[in-house]
Amino acid sequence: MGKKLNVAVIGAGRIGKVHAETIAVRIPEAALAAVVDPCAEAAHALAQRCAIPCVAAGADEILRNPSIDAVLICSPTNTHADLVIEAARAGKHIFCEKPIDHRLEMIDRVLEAVDKAGVKLQVGYNRRFDPNFARARRAIVSGEIGTPHLLHIISRDPGPPPIAYVKESGGMFLDMTTHDFDMARFLIGDEVTQVYAAAGVRVDPEIGKVGDVDTAVIVLHFANGVVGTIDNCRKAPYGYDQRVEVLGSAGAIATENCYPNYAVISTAESVRRDLPLNFFMDRYMESFANELRAFVEAVAEDRPTPVTGADGRAPVVMALAARKSYEERRPVWLEEVRAREGTLATVGH
Amino acid sequence: MGKKLNVAVIGAGRIGKVHAETIAVRIPEAALAAVVDPCAEAAHALAQRCAIPCVAAGADEILRNPSIDAVLICSPTNTHADLVIEAARAGKHIFCEKPIDHRLEMIDRVLEAVDKAGVKLQVGYNRRFDPNFARARRAIVSGEIGTPHLLHIISRDPGPPPIAYVKESGGMFLDMTTHDFDMARFLIGDEVTQVYAAAGVRVDPEIGKVGDVDTAVIVLHFANGVVGTIDNCRKAPYGYDQRVEVLGSAGAIATENCYPNYAVISTAESVRRDLPLNFFMDRYMESFANELRAFVEAVAEDRPTPVTGADGRAPVVMALAARKSYEERRPVWLEEVRAREGTLATVGH
Amino acid sequence: MGKKLNVAVIGAGRIGKVHAETIAVRIPEAALAAVVDPCAEAAHALAQRCAIPCVAAGADEILRNPSIDAVLICSPTNTHADLVIEAARAGKHIFCEKPIDHRLEMIDRVLEAVDKAGVKLQVGYNRRFDPNFARARRAIVSGEIGTPHLLHIISRDPGPPPIAYVKESGGMFLDMTTHDFDMARFLIGDEVTQVYAAAGVRVDPEIGKVGDVDTAVIVLHFANGVVGTIDNCRKAPYGYDQRVEVLGSAGAIATENCYPNYAVISTAESVRRDLPLNFFMDRYMESFANELRAFVEAVAEDRPTPVTGADGRAPVVMALAARKSYEERRPVWLEEVRAREGTLATVGH
Amino acid sequence: MGKKLNVAVIGAGRIGKVHAETIAVRIPEAALAAVVDPCAEAAHALAQRCAIPCVAAGADEILRNPSIDAVLICSPTNTHADLVIEAARAGKHIFCEKPIDHRLEMIDRVLEAVDKAGVKLQVGYNRRFDPNFARARRAIVSGEIGTPHLLHIISRDPGPPPIAYVKESGGMFLDMTTHDFDMARFLIGDEVTQVYAAAGVRVDPEIGKVGDVDTAVIVLHFANGVVGTIDNCRKAPYGYDQRVEVLGSAGAIATENCYPNYAVISTAESVRRDLPLNFFMDRYMESFANELRAFVEAVAEDRPTPVTGADGRAPVVMALAARKSYEERRPVWLEEVRAREGTLATVGH
Repeated sequence: MGKKLNVAVIGAGRIGKVHAETIAVRIPEAALAAVVDPCAEAAHALAQRCAIPCVAAGADEILRNPSIDAVLICSPTNTHADLVIEAARAGKHIFCEKPIDHRLEMIDRVLEAVDKAGVKLQVGYNRRFDPNFARARRAIVSGEIGTPHLLHIISRDPGPPPIAYVKESGGMFLDMTTHDFDMARFLIGDEVTQVYAAAGVRVDPEIGKVGDVDTAVIVLHFANGVVGTIDNCRKAPYGYDQRVEVLGSAGAIATENCYPNYAVISTAESVRRDLPLNFFMDRYMESFANELRAFVEAVAEDRPTPVTGADGRAPVVMALAARKSYEERRPVWLEEVRAREGTLATVGH
Repeated sequence: MGKKLNVAVIGAGRIGKVHAETIAVRIPEAALAAVVDPCAEAAHALAQRCAIPCVAAGADEILRNPSIDAVLICSPTNTHADLVIEAARAGKHIFCEKPIDHRLEMIDRVLEAVDKAGVKLQVGYNRRFDPNFARARRAIVSGEIGTPHLLHIISRDPGPPPIAYVKESGGMFLDMTTHDFDMARFLIGDEVTQVYAAAGVRVDPEIGKVGDVDTAVIVLHFANGVVGTIDNCRKAPYGYDQRVEVLGSAGAIATENCYPNYAVISTAESVRRDLPLNFFMDRYMESFANELRAFVEAVAEDRPTPVTGADGRAPVVMALAARKSYEERRPVWLEEVRAREGTLATVGH
Repeated sequence: MGKKLNVAVIGAGRIGKVHAETIAVRIPEAALAAVVDPCAEAAHALAQRCAIPCVAAGADEILRNPSIDAVLICSPTNTHADLVIEAARAGKHIFCEKPIDHRLEMIDRVLEAVDKAGVKLQVGYNRRFDPNFARARRAIVSGEIGTPHLLHIISRDPGPPPIAYVKESGGMFLDMTTHDFDMARFLIGDEVTQVYAAAGVRVDPEIGKVGDVDTAVIVLHFANGVVGTIDNCRKAPYGYDQRVEVLGSAGAIATENCYPNYAVISTAESVRRDLPLNFFMDRYMESFANELRAFVEAVAEDRPTPVTGADGRAPVVMALAARKSYEERRPVWLEEVRAREGTLATVGH
Repeated sequence: MGKKLNVAVIGAGRIGKVHAETIAVRIPEAALAAVVDPCAEAAHALAQRCAIPCVAAGADEILRNPSIDAVLICSPTNTHADLVIEAARAGKHIFCEKPIDHRLEMIDRVLEAVDKAGVKLQVGYNRRFDPNFARARRAIVSGEIGTPHLLHIISRDPGPPPIAYVKESGGMFLDMTTHDFDMARFLIGDEVTQVYAAAGVRVDPEIGKVGDVDTAVIVLHFANGVVGTIDNCRKAPYGYDQRVEVLGSAGAIATENCYPNYAVISTAESVRRDLPLNFFMDRYMESFANELRAFVEAVAEDRPTPVTGADGRAPVVMALAARKSYEERRPVWLEEVRAREGTLATVGH
């Protein structure tokens, strides 16, 4: 093992803490060099917990520090784009929580800055690193289930977020379904060309009043002919429901939810088990650690990151197209959305 | 128990045999009075096996026989419409295998004849009587999972039929998906108003050459706002895949496939089980018996049959709309198909 | 197909009816020739239902009838031994419900009579023919799990029988566990040499008052070194619990219970399914049909039956040894029980 | 939160590292103060990884340090007893890996020293803290399954340890089954009075040559009438098999194995999943963290530890009785073993 990668954490909130702990205990190839947060107390608490030697006064202090190799951007979404651009200009490798931004133009400016700086960028679509979904992808790559034909993604939250959050979220397709759009591209390994969204307000009329939907089915037409469906709902009364199913020419793979225990209780009423893991931090704990490990390895070995800037852009295009499809009640080509935005960039991977 | 219902079997093929055996052994309220089949040998074999006292020379002999109360029409599809009309005119109650016909005009003439004669008609959409799907329906009716929001039907055959059959089948939507269209209406208890079909040829190019598809996803917009998806493929390498999943406001229900045994084998390679039941006669054995029992009861108690003529018509409308959606790559209102056919009948249930 | 096997049913009760219906509908190689029952009404009802041409006045009328090839003895247990002996003397092949008798001397007299007459005898240990347990046996025979090391049988009733029945039953080991003793020999394909029974009264003190137990674990030492355990209880609140698990040198097989449906309901309380099949007639419906089919084939092809007289005797020896072990709180050699009875016969298979 | 508990780690091997990382990241109420290991390199590596301020020259340095509140004894088994005694005399609270010792006299001396010093002692029977087994215990304590009647523990290793290890291990009952003996007492919450062990050499004849067994069934008679069985094998070809099942008067609970993923792959061959977690460090990762958390809480709140010295002693008594039962082929009272050892202590909890 050579020199450790020196990493700074920008944002000491919930996800920043998760990433810091992962670096501290599970990734010996990296070291925590600094942390920053507008809330000094949060930054200091995290520094103490994870033995981080420096609490910075601001992000610029971190970006100016030549001993820091990489930053983990864990601050609020509306700060992502600027921070990535500044970090890129400072020559830091960047792990940025999803989404980069909700606006395609801004994403394109970010990707341009990263490209120009020649630094690594990994976007935090952590679910790719979940052992279940990673297993599904392996089944496809290895040929275990043959050529994929049909994909079905179930992605349901335990309950809707507060209305205040919904208002600022960009809408369900941008806020929630982007994870599933990324999952679809990841699993099938191809681009979606057209989407059709059937959606409605079933859970909470207030969500409808602020112009959003809470329940949807989105059909994905892939370039290679695969047809996918995403099944979204803001409320699954039994908890966090996160599954995928792929049918291929030689077989199928289906993943199950994760549970706090695997006990079955049989009584005179039913044969039952406890509810699945309800909180995304529990459900995806493993994937958060795995994505950081992959980032550190990509930097150390100078390889492309597994979730690139283009991978961060594509789900936003899909979300915009889904919204348009829902509004116009017709299938929408992704090309239409790109054209409208005047950013007809080639999205490959 | 009063007088037994005297039943004649028209068609001594595979499904006729199943129904005759059910009447013989499992439904004491009915008796087999006669059987007829163009193949006299088949008719006699069935008569012997099930102790049927009379092998008729033709269907008309049966229809003229005043001691016969009801007929089971198990002959080829293209004979169904005429036989139902004649049986209705002869005052017989009718159990008719699905579909009544592929043409809406012909179905409407059939329904008119039945209506005029005042006899009972039950169409053989047997899957409603499968213990799994019946359980799903009960979960909805009882409120166990609250108000339904989303429905997902997986319906995949073990392998495609011969091309000769495909050519005559009316296409996958009419031949295979009608079962799923019926299942969707049955489970949700409401009408579909619009469908969107994404389909393709993934399994066998020969199927494409004769103008059909072998893989499809169909989105169903229900009048009550529920969104449904049907996932069809002519080939599931692991066998017959028949499942449904419904998400409601208070919970979800999902059914599993049926297996020849429930043994789990764990070796150094995997934790595995044998393949699911592969043949529809095995998978739906119980449902075939249940649907006949329901028919006999409906006649005996002078109640509406559980699968009426209108229920037999609706899936055909949906299949025609799905085909149109696939061809025109847009969502299609069922109204469009009805209008085209000039039979804007009210389909209720 | 040559001449059909003419079969008479002795005893038109619950199990007699099941077997008659199986012959009538599912075994074309056999025909029902006569039925007899002390209750003439039951006999006539069964005759009508299954188109049996003759209702005999007594068993002797059947045994004297030269056109009858085989009898199904479905009468009460205390009549089995005499009927088997008489049927053997009359040259009829015999299917006899389990047990032949509770007394080893009587069983030995029966086996002698059968042996002398050279007729086939099959004892009704139907569970061997259950698709799950048959699958477990196949896993062992085929080498799929290697050489067996450990066997675990779970066999629990939904609830205890009436005390009046318990008094006459011969005790739990003879009444209930004999099925499991047979299963153990069947699965492992070897003889048990020693048993150790730990038992008690946990379900109903009344059972203890009449000298019986209602809960037990029995350890089986097989000649080949396999160690087996049987886990019995007269009451499983969730229903009929019938499972086996075998560990071998190359893997393990475990069977699950059977359910009326395979639906999973997820609500805010739990992820649950309905209770397993609760009634032995439902759970073992398939095995009842399979065992009769095997009997008819064994007679038709002049091969040994799959459950011989010796197979009918062995579980009784094991039950007697288990009782002795429980009473004396020590492991008991089967040899001790055989010696006590003065019938040191070689029990092989 | 008051003052943090200062903890020292004695032994920087595999399990020492696990415990240190848990303290570092998951238990904010405790702090790592020192580490010691005969291998200085291992000690320093762990110190760096977990930011431990002091690498001690020997255990005595740690025991003399007044700022250290508690020690985690993670050194080899044959050092446990002396270290616990010395730590107790030094007034340190003690978490000691299992077993305390293989000799009852030595254990009694240890318990006496701990008792005299008035310090806390927790023995590392971690499986009690596994979410599955903890759930089973909750089902019993809460009355969810009523009064327990029968217990079945499956505990099988993926493969046998090296013969050199077997020779020193004290035999399978002491080395492997002690975990299960502890589990039995934990789940049922009562003492075992008599055991019966059926065992043999099935996996590797070399194990037999050094006087040990590799496959066993142990029947446990509890004071409260519950009957338990433990099913042990040194080799489960499919991996680490760790399950329990309890039948009670109102229901049953059964736990499943844990898997690296919950994906099901269906192909033309089988419906399968990947093998269960194969390594005890993976399988019990959560339980290792939970037991330490419980220890820190017990010390902080001055409550009894959840696995006391008496809990550490009882499984050793059971193991000695099981060995005696196997050798003498008869059920053995635990009293016999205690008497033989001349240490008729009251073991309660």
